[in-house]
Amino acid sequence: MTTPLFARVAIVGFGLIGSSIARCVVEYPGLAGAVTCVDRAQAVCDRVLELGLADKAGTDPALVSECDLVVLATPIGAFADLGALIGPHLREGTILTDVGSVKMSVIRDIGPHVPDGVHFIPGHPLAGTEHSGPDSGFAALFKGRWCILTPLPGTNPEALDRLTAFWAGCGSQMEVMEPAHHDRVLAITSHLPHLIAYTIVGTATDLEEQMKSEVIRFSASGFRDFTRIAASDPVMWRDIFLNNREAVLEVIQRFTEDLTALQRAIRWGEGEKLESLFTRTRAIRRSIIDAKQA
Amino acid sequence: MTTPLFARVAIVGFGLIGSSIARCVVEYPGLAGAVTCVDRAQAVCDRVLELGLADKAGTDPALVSECDLVVLATPIGAFADLGALIGPHLREGTILTDVGSVKMSVIRDIGPHVPDGVHFIPGHPLAGTEHSGPDSGFAALFKGRWCILTPLPGTNPEALDRLTAFWAGCGSQMEVMEPAHHDRVLAITSHLPHLIAYTIVGTATDLEEQMKSEVIRFSASGFRDFTRIAASDPVMWRDIFLNNREAVLEVIQRFTEDLTALQRAIRWGEGEKLESLFTRTRAIRRSIIDAKQA
Ligand SMILES: NC(=O)c1ccc[n+]([C@@H]2O[C@H](COP(=O)([O-])OP(=O)(O)OC[C@H]3O[C@@H](n4cnc5c(N)ncnc54)[C@H](OP(=O)(O)O)[C@@H]3O)[C@@H](O)[C@H]2O)c1
Ligand SMILES: NC(=O)c1ccc[n+]([C@@H]2O[C@H](COP(=O)([O-])OP(=O)(O)OC[C@H]3O[C@@H](n4cnc5c(N)ncnc54)[C@H](OP(=O)(O)O)[C@@H]3O)[C@@H](O)[C@H]2O)c1
Repeated sequence: MTTPLFARVAIVGFGLIGSSIARCVVEYPGLAGAVTCVDRAQAVCDRVLELGLADKAGTDPALVSECDLVVLATPIGAFADLGALIGPHLREGTILTDVGSVKMSVIRDIGPHVPDGVHFIPGHPLAGTEHSGPDSGFAALFKGRWCILTPLPGTNPEALDRLTAFWAGCGSQMEVMEPAHHDRVLAITSHLPHLIAYTIVGTATDLEEQMKSEVIRFSASGFRDFTRIAASDPVMWRDIFLNNREAVLEVIQRFTEDLTALQRAIRWGEGEKLESLFTRTRAIRRSIIDAKQA
Repeated sequence: MTTPLFARVAIVGFGLIGSSIARCVVEYPGLAGAVTCVDRAQAVCDRVLELGLADKAGTDPALVSECDLVVLATPIGAFADLGALIGPHLREGTILTDVGSVKMSVIRDIGPHVPDGVHFIPGHPLAGTEHSGPDSGFAALFKGRWCILTPLPGTNPEALDRLTAFWAGCGSQMEVMEPAHHDRVLAITSHLPHLIAYTIVGTATDLEEQMKSEVIRFSASGFRDFTRIAASDPVMWRDIFLNNREAVLEVIQRFTEDLTALQRAIRWGEGEKLESLFTRTRAIRRSIIDAKQA
């Protein structure tokens, strides 16, 4: 038996993402020797022990002190408080990472609490479902999906390699990025699509009753795809929009300008404008198919 | 052998929808004795004969004169011209229908060309893919999907029953609606989602090159679902927006107001407003699951 990459990994916030990482540790040998669950809810801790996803579980932040990898996996709005609670218990040489969907705010909120000698490397696995909680995770969640690390200048290369190996062992395709750039890319690939989906489903929610029931019955013509996206966790998404404000407002602005132009083309019957945009957008679809991301 | 519902059905415009109907006739006995293909392109006619989807095919509109069911399946922008070409050749007792995605404009464009004694019953199967042309069709396309008929006042009930039986034989779930109501329901369930998807993909198209290539690489986080929708046929969608202008502009207006409210909540950090909307939209998803439309 070879020694695993980490002796003991602490997962703080044991929901969809946290419990999926734990399942990887359980199912794929060589990642970590043991898992500690830290969650604010005792009920979650009990459930995690019952599922056999960790051998230690509790609400006490001091539990992280015996771990050489600590993964923060709560909604990002909790990170500032979490940093204050957990920081003092981190021991030298530990790698501290997270899975939050925004990276600049995580650096702002966690950074000040990281003791010297602890390797803080923010990360973001681009994988998820619209479900939440420790029962919704599964080991294959990260398989073939991107995981982006956004190390700060001066990050210890060996620590970066170990964390990269850990995620690769979970099945992820690895990528390194500047944190601010990560937030701009995700604002358009993920945050704007979610905001739009929430908006359109919200618009339908406000229709009079009879219309609403028909929208539900005939939802298969496009609307349905948006409702799946708009069923994602409300707290997680609230935190994403509040913490990636600048980048999200910037893409909303561009989107609104483009929608206004289309609206005007419809109002004035400018068929050629519509057709030419609808033709250009097909090319992006082909690029995605070519990049094997379809 | 029982006699089929129709002796000979003409399909005018033999693309995805037209060829799928023809495949139903070929594969499901009892729908029609034979199929005539009418298409403006001789190449399409040749291909249809080669595929064995019709025993007669040509560009001459007079071909419809020997058919007791005529289905118009071109983009709706072609309907006014098509009505003028085909109207004179329709024989008494024939049922004339269409599959266009907007119903008020079809009534406006086809209605004046329908001779006395011909039963004009507009229709719309809520089924499709992002592919086009006679090779892309398949008989199972309509299976379990809605097909909405929007008969005009005074429609012959026997003709309505026969057309209903035809679509039910293709596997559709049938529904009758007022044409104006159809257009309002579809504006929100189908036309707005497509417009939004085209817009967001268009916004991404305008990004600088490096950003664009990253959006493509990391498209799986939400954006990708929009690109599939935005790869739909440009001419078909141009015609839909131009011909359902009032209803589409009305829902864009509502959508924009709602987006502006969310944008403001993000700008001012109003987390409760965001969370409460994101919680409400989950309920619609549950209704869709309950209605077995998920
Ligand atoms: N889901 C996705 O699609 C996805 C994808 C990539 C990254 N992420 C990121 O992953 C993180 C977790 O998401 P998830 O989908 O796994 O969420 P989840 O299933 O809702 O799990 C979140 C966990 O964090 C705990 N928690 C919530 N608020 C807390 C607080 N204030 N203090 C301490 N613990 C708290 C929750 O406990 P309770 O049960 O007590 O609330 C729960 O155990 C988020 O930062 C998100 O941005 C999510
Ligand atoms: N696709 C969907 O998701 C969907 C769903 C429900 C209803 N519909 C409706 O079904 C109709 C057809 O859609 P489709 O997806 O089957 O399209 P398609 O695959 O592009 O087929 C359209 C056919 O109509 C022919 N055509 C185009 N312009 C014409 C013109 N000006 N005069 C005569 N023939 C013409 C085309 O011939 P060429 O090859 O020569 O252009 C082609 O054979 C549209 O009215 C659409 O609104 C579509």
